[in-house]
Amino acid sequence: MTYGTGRTYKKVEIIGTSSAGLEAAVQQAVDRAQQSLDKLSWFEVLDIRGHIGNDGKIDEYQAVIKVAFELK
Amino acid sequence: MTYGTGRTYKKVEIIGTSSAGLEAAVQQAVDRAQQSLDKLSWFEVLDIRGHIGNDGKIDEYQAVIKVAFELK
Amino acid sequence: MTYGTGRTYKKVEIIGTSSAGLEAAVQQAVDRAQQSLDKLSWFEVLDIRGHIGNDGKIDEYQAVIKVAFELK
Amino acid sequence: MTYGTGRTYKKVEIIGTSSAGLEAAVQQAVDRAQQSLDKLSWFEVLDIRGHIGNDGKIDEYQAVIKVAFELK
Amino acid sequence: MTYGTGRTYKKVEIIGTSSAGLEAAVQQAVDRAQQSLDKLSWFEVLDIRGHIGNDGKIDEYQAVIKVAFELK
Amino acid sequence: MTYGTGRTYKKVEIIGTSSAGLEAAVQQAVDRAQQSLDKLSWFEVLDIRGHIGNDGKIDEYQAVIKVAFELK
Amino acid sequence: MTYGTGRTYKKVEIIGTSSAGLEAAVQQAVDRAQQSLDKLSWFEVLDIRGHIGNDGKIDEYQAVIKVAFELK
Amino acid sequence: MTYGTGRTYKKVEIIGTSSAGLEAAVQQAVDRAQQSLDKLSWFEVLDIRGHIGNDGKIDEYQAVIKVAFELK
Amino acid sequence: MTYGTGRTYKKVEIIGTSSAGLEAAVQQAVDRAQQSLDKLSWFEVLDIRGHIGNDGKIDEYQAVIKVAFELK
Amino acid sequence: MTYGTGRTYKKVEIIGTSSAGLEAAVQQAVDRAQQSLDKLSWFEVLDIRGHIGNDGKIDEYQAVIKVAFELK
Amino acid sequence: MTYGTGRTYKKVEIIGTSSAGLEAAVQQAVDRAQQSLDKLSWFEVLDIRGHIGNDGKIDEYQAVIKVAFELK
Amino acid sequence: MTYGTGRTYKKVEIIGTSSAGLEAAVQQAVDRAQQSLDKLSWFEVLDIRGHIGNDGKIDEYQAVIKVAFELK
Repeated sequence: MTYGTGRTYKKVEIIGTSSAGLEAAVQQAVDRAQQSLDKLSWFEVLDIRGHIGNDGKIDEYQAVIKVAFELK
Repeated sequence: MTYGTGRTYKKVEIIGTSSAGLEAAVQQAVDRAQQSLDKLSWFEVLDIRGHIGNDGKIDEYQAVIKVAFELK
Repeated sequence: MTYGTGRTYKKVEIIGTSSAGLEAAVQQAVDRAQQSLDKLSWFEVLDIRGHIGNDGKIDEYQAVIKVAFELK
Repeated sequence: MTYGTGRTYKKVEIIGTSSAGLEAAVQQAVDRAQQSLDKLSWFEVLDIRGHIGNDGKIDEYQAVIKVAFELK
Repeated sequence: MTYGTGRTYKKVEIIGTSSAGLEAAVQQAVDRAQQSLDKLSWFEVLDIRGHIGNDGKIDEYQAVIKVAFELK
Repeated sequence: MTYGTGRTYKKVEIIGTSSAGLEAAVQQAVDRAQQSLDKLSWFEVLDIRGHIGNDGKIDEYQAVIKVAFELK
Repeated sequence: MTYGTGRTYKKVEIIGTSSAGLEAAVQQAVDRAQQSLDKLSWFEVLDIRGHIGNDGKIDEYQAVIKVAFELK
Repeated sequence: MTYGTGRTYKKVEIIGTSSAGLEAAVQQAVDRAQQSLDKLSWFEVLDIRGHIGNDGKIDEYQAVIKVAFELK
Repeated sequence: MTYGTGRTYKKVEIIGTSSAGLEAAVQQAVDRAQQSLDKLSWFEVLDIRGHIGNDGKIDEYQAVIKVAFELK
Repeated sequence: MTYGTGRTYKKVEIIGTSSAGLEAAVQQAVDRAQQSLDKLSWFEVLDIRGHIGNDGKIDEYQAVIKVAFELK
Repeated sequence: MTYGTGRTYKKVEIIGTSSAGLEAAVQQAVDRAQQSLDKLSWFEVLDIRGHIGNDGKIDEYQAVIKVAFELK
Repeated sequence: MTYGTGRTYKKVEIIGTSSAGLEAAVQQAVDRAQQSLDKLSWFEVLDIRGHIGNDGKIDEYQAVIKVAFELK
């Protein structure tokens, strides 16, 4: 990548969920987005949420992120 | 749907317009988005705007919303 | 376009970069988005950023914008 | 109520849901909050969301509001 | 209206109230603003609030909006 | 004032300054606005700023507020 | 208090009013909240507002604050 | 749970702390809130903060969250 | 101007448009506002938007600004 | 100071505390910042917080401010 | 530390990066800031971002934080 | 630069002014910051403001930006 050349990126909002924690939820979103979008470059976390199970334990993290990729 | 399984959702920003009011504008956005996206799960209203006609009456509501659907 | 008819728009987030300044970066984003999306109607600037070269001069403007187009 | 006297209010965040639309969802939240809180004075809408059914129609509005009441 | 010509708009913040609901409160603000301002072009909803009566029913919606009109 | 009747308010943004402190700066804004607007009903503080003199003391508070009044 | 031990706090939103100024309005909110909540630890000011009397003088400050206390 | 039925939820703001990291701090808040509130349904992370010990290591994460539960 | 004296300013929200770019759009708003308001002191840019013509080129910049002037 | 000349300012975030109230807390931050920074020009209040003592009285105001000074 | 005494803190914005996850990125920022600033007291997370490698895995977390320390 | 290695950046808030327009104001801030800080990597525009001269023309753009540089 060379700065100063005209490049274009697109950002898409994705939510990933995982019982394994915040970082696993982010990786889940990245993994799935990768299948239908071009090679992803970076992500930004917008919101962190989660679900609480009947036993009072957090049974799911939900990571609302934006992923960005270059439009070549 | 089972909490704790790895799921992924995508959110897309849509604007619907309607002369019939706010809720009709939201439904307009949902209806049209449904045609080109997968089955929608939920929506979030971001902004409510509208146009005012020559007679001083609101002749159009504009609902800026995000719609979300699961990436299966 | 007639107000009061049911219309639908979609907004997409794009980043354009240019060494020539802010407005060129916005136009870069619009030009490239135009290739894969329908005819664009308007844009909104979300963020203005840039890179600083080794000589201390701004060698790239980065315009984070949303572009909107009608879903016909 | 007389301005300038020392009064105190408390605000509580409530979500109401209704299939009948936004205003019914707000009223649902107000009705239920009324049962366990003191006499409510006003509300503020924070977020408007909703669920989309299998038929693509909005089957539920969700109104996130704050309700306020005086601590006498 | 032709895009690209130099035009100027002014935005003014108005609150309308109505016992009949949100849209009536917005129309109330538009109607009254119309009397002392030029022909209004559009509005944007900033905040939605309301008053709760002694019977626990919402007896007034308050719509905080901005109205815009061209400075010719 | 009776809730549920159609009323309309206008909000105007004013900055007042005073060497005597924050509350005096707010009152300065209210006093001056009162001269050219209708009877004011309430105010909301948006920003608090100030100037620092050569002796390192705050020599001026600046209160950015909105004042509201009924359009009768 | 020892950092690193598991502690839990709750925040509650309170509005205090006073004719004597901003700080008195905050103290009013704290005083009243203290009667029905546990020992308060700190507060955060969210909004500062007030009412303007018929003589054009501020006759009431309204401080919207959050108070926090430990859940032991 | 059936969408479209009138349900009501309440959100409460809680801070949990833990020396073990962010997720432990969130779980601490959820665990303690569970004791005095009804069965919790979900949480939203508002702020992430922490304390730094004399040895320059983070000795405590502080998670400011909202927890939500149904008012049945 | 002397700091510490009681002064009052008013801010008004204006939108200027121009095909010549962002700065021309800001100047357009300032020029027109100047005709009906007192001598303007400063401006703040709130939003930058624009229209895209049929040829895919930006044919209009829209600058949403606030202009401020002293109420003498 | 002459407008239109190229000048540069730096802003630094400071928190001042005082038992004497909000304005004393702001002045405390300004006084201390003055010792290690160049001559300060202005300040902006970002957040107002405080501590509540065992007797339920506010025993400390905390003013989070930005101070600005010219880089000559 | 005694509440009510005049104390002053400074906040500085730092970004730490780490391949090991979010908390390691925060600790990286704290560790490095410690070398050139006084003893740090607390941190606040402003933004969480990261880079995605060619294999589609997150190869770097970026934590944008503010660190605070007392100006003695 | 290699992603995944532990790096640290610092961000500093700077205001640059110029009679020549927005981009010149940003470059002014970058130029001056460069003299007393390490080699700058990027900037983010936070606010765009300006001064209006007696002739009604914008005689100064003020760019409030953050500049970032690596702490090596």
